[in-house]
Amino acid sequence: MSSAGSIVATRILGLDPGLRITGFGLIDVLGSQLRYVASGCIKTGEGELPGRLKILLDGVREVVQTYAPDTVAVEKVFVNVNPQSTLLLGQARGAVICGAVSCDLPVAEYTALQVKQAVVGYGKAAKEQVQHMVQRLLELEGNPSPDAADALACAICHAHGGRGLGGMAGVGGRRRAGRILSL
Amino acid sequence: MSSAGSIVATRILGLDPGLRITGFGLIDVLGSQLRYVASGCIKTGEGELPGRLKILLDGVREVVQTYAPDTVAVEKVFVNVNPQSTLLLGQARGAVICGAVSCDLPVAEYTALQVKQAVVGYGKAAKEQVQHMVQRLLELEGNPSPDAADALACAICHAHGGRGLGGMAGVGGRRRAGRILSL
Repeated sequence: MSSAGSIVATRILGLDPGLRITGFGLIDVLGSQLRYVASGCIKTGEGELPGRLKILLDGVREVVQTYAPDTVAVEKVFVNVNPQSTLLLGQARGAVICGAVSCDLPVAEYTALQVKQAVVGYGKAAKEQVQHMVQRLLELEGNPSPDAADALACAICHAHGGRGLGGMAGVGGRRRAGRILSL
Repeated sequence: MSSAGSIVATRILGLDPGLRITGFGLIDVLGSQLRYVASGCIKTGEGELPGRLKILLDGVREVVQTYAPDTVAVEKVFVNVNPQSTLLLGQARGAVICGAVSCDLPVAEYTALQVKQAVVGYGKAAKEQVQHMVQRLLELEGNPSPDAADALACAICHAHGGRGLGGMAGVGGRRRAGRILSL
């Protein structure tokens, strides 16, 4: 896929699902080099569940249409002590994954432990350590918001050896070729 | 919306979400009269989670495109003893609801208790009683499959006074007018 004077970059969309706030973060990977593209979050407000799930679905689809990632990495959510919260979080995660697969993108899943190990080198790292390492690895000027940082960390985890750390779940869709960046 | 010699029918799509099997059932409501339209189930097979969620999303969208319901009623799922199962079921339910809201349909939610009360008149009714009453109320010749029966029961629950029993969650989409059926 590479030609003289150009390298194929893979663009990864990391997602940190939540019913209230879903963080997203995009990075480009060129060999071992990571480059920050964009990050932010999708907020669902206070309405009824179906409407909030629609906001998540449409929000992820909009991010995909805007930034055209090649692949998606989603953080596996915590099983909460409260079963009702677990159910709500599960539904949010379902909507977020649907946003990706409805755009025919492959989705890989990583546990928080895998993400922290990949980014900080320690599975029980604190949230601030993750934020700090994301800032350093992507050479960001400011600190990303916690939700965006977790999403970027998930994208970095995928870049750092997705195949070794977690299962790559192809969904039978088309795979878009990486963008060509001139060097 | 009604004119001489015709009555507006509302078509309700009932959904009983599950990660392995999601049941669906459609009925037409004309005043107090219920008419069976179709039912069946969407099976997701054995693959990875993202691919299975895509099958649910696409499956519900296909049912909507085929039968053009005006509104959707989804059964609220049980919170399982096993948190991991609850999380999986939540994700399936999220995908199923996304199938409906991505077609701009309003989605109402009902608990199993509400559905059983509406169909059998008793909140703790056995599965067989629900199947039997669905068969009688819709004048079906054979017994519907358990998954389809639960979905049809959910649609009947909505027909029997949705507004009284459960919250109607408009998602801000267009509402399609009911079909005109000549009498």
